[in-house]
Amino acid sequence: MKGRLYGVGVGPGDPELLTLKALRIIKSVAVIAYPAPEEGASFARAIVARWLSANEREVALLFPMRPGPASDAVYERAADALAAELDRGLDVACLCEGDPLFYGTFGRLLPRLATRYEIEIVPGVSSLGAASAAAALPLVQGEETLLVIPATLGEKALSARLAAADAALIMKLGRHLEKVRRVLSSLSLLERAIYIERASLEEGRVLPFSAVDFGDAPYFSMALIASREHH
Amino acid sequence: MKGRLYGVGVGPGDPELLTLKALRIIKSVAVIAYPAPEEGASFARAIVARWLSANEREVALLFPMRPGPASDAVYERAADALAAELDRGLDVACLCEGDPLFYGTFGRLLPRLATRYEIEIVPGVSSLGAASAAAALPLVQGEETLLVIPATLGEKALSARLAAADAALIMKLGRHLEKVRRVLSSLSLLERAIYIERASLEEGRVLPFSAVDFGDAPYFSMALIASREHH
Repeated sequence: MKGRLYGVGVGPGDPELLTLKALRIIKSVAVIAYPAPEEGASFARAIVARWLSANEREVALLFPMRPGPASDAVYERAADALAAELDRGLDVACLCEGDPLFYGTFGRLLPRLATRYEIEIVPGVSSLGAASAAAALPLVQGEETLLVIPATLGEKALSARLAAADAALIMKLGRHLEKVRRVLSSLSLLERAIYIERASLEEGRVLPFSAVDFGDAPYFSMALIASREHH
Repeated sequence: MKGRLYGVGVGPGDPELLTLKALRIIKSVAVIAYPAPEEGASFARAIVARWLSANEREVALLFPMRPGPASDAVYERAADALAAELDRGLDVACLCEGDPLFYGTFGRLLPRLATRYEIEIVPGVSSLGAASAAAALPLVQGEETLLVIPATLGEKALSARLAAADAALIMKLGRHLEKVRRVLSSLSLLERAIYIERASLEEGRVLPFSAVDFGDAPYFSMALIASREHH
């Protein structure tokens, strides 16, 4: 009998933003898997570290810490590592920062395993919710639309899409801070934009985008543009 | 001394999708407030009912069950009811279905109270996460954008915005099912669209949008259009 795979959202960083369901599953499975850099600690594991016990087997799925998506070979290796545990009949919780299917690694692993194993997704608090909570700004209401857009897109694409949006969340600012600043400025959106770094964590910061220092932002920083009505 | 107001996301419906933080706050405050229809039970209250005790004061914020946003007077009355508790020095947890600032009532109450009271937002699992988990489809990845759009918009606006989207979540289908079907069909998106009703609940349903019966969908049903790559 094959094991069951859980894609478990562990929330944006504050360990208290774990759901009761995620906690139950983490405590019940034989194997805990998580993405981890080749050197250093796994952020997803750190979020739930207080709940892990020595009885559980841990499987670190190693990802190179380069910008951009990992190679197909890296995802294949990670999927194979999960499959090996499942084939032994062990249930596996794969920890996912934020929500499992809202950007992130698990969305790449799911199609590689979905036909062979029983998989359950446990949704988590996403960076979207964490960002609007940190800014304490209503994100969208009523008939407004929300655009979620990665800062890694080209300047033209960013500009065209943001111009048509009511409210927007720009993800993964990282090395793209200056490009995003240019785009927001040209669209007269700079004053409405809020910069959010490490939302939900104690060291988190929220400030007007226009007040952010030049230079790089952490990869997981975001810009939130609340709808005109609520700014 | 004034009380502190918490906008507490209680998740999409499954009581186990409550966060540890939401649970701690619900157990610690003197007053629990929640939106409720003029007749019948509050969905937000039902999600956390097992954690409520007779020691807490409960304040139902009554909203008429008509389609569309409530009137300003209704929001003012709800904000006043919260203010009355806070002015007595009582901490209040205002329960919010899903995430407090992702569509929904609390976004309308926040600006009415933010200058007078200390307010903390506790983000929750949103209907966005619940929908992609129910469909078990990666929602967005890499450089893809996500559009969240209410079905209440006009046919032209829906069509123009969906035509430009990579992935999309169409909220609040309700009485707009047929209009959305026409739009998706004209954009050749019908085969990629998944219909999701009462995501995260046991009575929830996930089916191809093209297989949905004619007639009305529940207000909280959604359509998910995963990006072309992952369909």
